[in-house]
Amino acid sequence: MGAREVENRGGKDREIVTAALLVIGDEILSGRTKDKNIGFTAEHLTAIGIDLKEVRVVPDEEPEIVAALNALRARYTYVFTTGGIGPTHDDITADAVAKAFGLPIDYHPRAVEILRARLAVTGGEMNEARMRMTRMPKGAELVLNKISAAPGFMIGNVIVMAGIPQVMQAMLEYVTPQLKTGTAMLSQTVRGDCREGDIGTELGAIAKAHNGVVIGSYPFMDEERRPNTHIVLRSRDPQKLAAAKSEVEAMLNRLHAAAD
Amino acid sequence: MGAREVENRGGKDREIVTAALLVIGDEILSGRTKDKNIGFTAEHLTAIGIDLKEVRVVPDEEPEIVAALNALRARYTYVFTTGGIGPTHDDITADAVAKAFGLPIDYHPRAVEILRARLAVTGGEMNEARMRMTRMPKGAELVLNKISAAPGFMIGNVIVMAGIPQVMQAMLEYVTPQLKTGTAMLSQTVRGDCREGDIGTELGAIAKAHNGVVIGSYPFMDEERRPNTHIVLRSRDPQKLAAAKSEVEAMLNRLHAAAD
Repeated sequence: MGAREVENRGGKDREIVTAALLVIGDEILSGRTKDKNIGFTAEHLTAIGIDLKEVRVVPDEEPEIVAALNALRARYTYVFTTGGIGPTHDDITADAVAKAFGLPIDYHPRAVEILRARLAVTGGEMNEARMRMTRMPKGAELVLNKISAAPGFMIGNVIVMAGIPQVMQAMLEYVTPQLKTGTAMLSQTVRGDCREGDIGTELGAIAKAHNGVVIGSYPFMDEERRPNTHIVLRSRDPQKLAAAKSEVEAMLNRLHAAAD
Repeated sequence: MGAREVENRGGKDREIVTAALLVIGDEILSGRTKDKNIGFTAEHLTAIGIDLKEVRVVPDEEPEIVAALNALRARYTYVFTTGGIGPTHDDITADAVAKAFGLPIDYHPRAVEILRARLAVTGGEMNEARMRMTRMPKGAELVLNKISAAPGFMIGNVIVMAGIPQVMQAMLEYVTPQLKTGTAMLSQTVRGDCREGDIGTELGAIAKAHNGVVIGSYPFMDEERRPNTHIVLRSRDPQKLAAAKSEVEAMLNRLHAAAD
């Protein structure tokens, strides 16, 4: 999908806003840390009308971060990154972002102020490592958060956030009012009370007949530990969504009547 | 990194085996389902001596899956995929893999047999949807699992697994003895009892001086709800790892002595 795309659905133009998430960190790839940011970001963006189209996880290696960032920012409306903005040598996200944009990097005066104010309270000392957290590409705007003194930043269509879930979530909330959003994807879930394999053919036919509605099928184990199926219908158009849902329900009614 | 790479560490050649994970599924990108396969795969591969170098999450869209698969399989020793091998229309992984390899796709006789045997037990009926689960690129080898009747498969350097964590885990265990593995990455964690910002400069100097050891720094809240730091050292060489760890410990001792 292009960065800005317009869907024509039933005569109405609905702008589609897309995003990618770039998770930066050796600790995720080694399995030491279990990522919690993908699920949170996915749910948040879906709710505000931004389609998360892709996620990548890359190591703390500058060429990897730069390459992924440049691929993603050319393709989607926004790129969110998590991780790599702390005070240690393995925190290289700000440098990688500056390099990807071809911008100089320097201490951000307002970020330095915020950090000094926090250190005055906590009693920590300002040093080279802490100053490192205030380095940002020229022109970056701060993405504040109430939890840590270290802001993330936004430059172009890239939003750079912390890796710690609590801090990342605060940054995502902070930046949300500034984001362009599209028509939200609406979603309805129907419980099949059947196995996926019982309805695959019929469901495929319904999906094919309902343009503008994406139908997904997800097996799960129900309360009686029997294989069951959730059918999830998604569309930006409430009428189309309702029509497809009725057809799925009618199909399930026929199936259950035949089984009785 | 290239697909096959040899590190020269202290005169010994240690082969590096790399992998990428491709997570396929709209439900992960919408936030409806929270992925559990990334963390499990990361930990498992690290333990057996395969470096997970990249993860991507893409939607149930054939061109997206094909493009990601071709980018990843050219670059890493192995590519693992999860999701999209069920009986419904949105399960398009097998077709996408066949397309990526330029191979024809057909019903795999042994997969059909396994499915028929299972249906004889469960009483489900064989139908077009269920047959769909047995379609695989020509030349694929089955990746069995004890939980579901639907095998995954391996073709070239790509291992195609289910999305349901339990089934995926069984498939990963099944395929493990067939995988080439390298010298495992060893890991040691040192608790800093300090803030990240207190040691950033010194830790960076140690990291720079210890080639062949990757040092990561991870803040966490300790039992007394104070900001604390884990320093994680990783290397394939036990001597190098021990040397770097001693230096980190000596640095921390100096820091704590100065604070007393």
